[in-house]
Amino acid sequence: MKKTKLQLQTPDEVDAVFYEAFMRCDADVMAALWADEDVVCVHPGAGVILEYEAIIRSWANIFNNVDAAEINTTLINSVLSDDMAVYVVAEEMLNSGQVAAVVLATNVYRKFDCGWLMVEHHASLVQNQPAGQTLQ
Amino acid sequence: MKKTKLQLQTPDEVDAVFYEAFMRCDADVMAALWADEDVVCVHPGAGVILEYEAIIRSWANIFNNVDAAEINTTLINSVLSDDMAVYVVAEEMLNSGQVAAVVLATNVYRKFDCGWLMVEHHASLVQNQPAGQTLQ
Repeated sequence: MKKTKLQLQTPDEVDAVFYEAFMRCDADVMAALWADEDVVCVHPGAGVILEYEAIIRSWANIFNNVDAAEINTTLINSVLSDDMAVYVVAEEMLNSGQVAAVVLATNVYRKFDCGWLMVEHHASLVQNQPAGQTLQ
Repeated sequence: MKKTKLQLQTPDEVDAVFYEAFMRCDADVMAALWADEDVVCVHPGAGVILEYEAIIRSWANIFNNVDAAEINTTLINSVLSDDMAVYVVAEEMLNSGQVAAVVLATNVYRKFDCGWLMVEHHASLVQNQPAGQTLQ
């Protein structure tokens, strides 16, 4: 890894730090939890971003518009191997305590020498569906 | 595995058979390449489906409306471990040879005793973006 990274011991830790960074709109932490290479980011409705610098820039752009994001997260499913984990998370985006949008995210974490890092975030908006029906 | 499954030796094989089944609208092959448990399917804009039977039913419903689908697929990225693989695929949905929609899919494959099977398909529509810009 060329950049300074967080040293996270488990996929659960990366997942928790990712959503903390997302909610606090912390671009520095976001930059420190993504791997440098073989990374993929898809924001809701958007095309794919494949370069580390472009991914970090995309998060910084999102964070530029707000100070903090209110998100209720629910872990829907996780599959694990020795050095890779795939988490599916429902993200309820709140606005003044009300659910404004529901996003489904597939997050992929990998184990490197320095610890676990994020290598993929693929998010999609759930359209025309009440939030209560998200889990099935 | 309770159901009869295909015996596929590599993630590449599952990926190829998945898209062949998708294009031929073959619900039987689709049923035979998904694992029975710990499975996740998100169709574009839709909520998450977590049960094997519901996932297979969702594909059968898609296939009910058409005889075959014209799809150009491009493998964008793949990450592999001993028993798990994550493929990101751009799916150009064609209509009379023209790109009608571009979908990004994260497909997760796992190795079981019987071979490699699909455990996740998370698809999202690329909105307001020319097809030519899909890859970045």
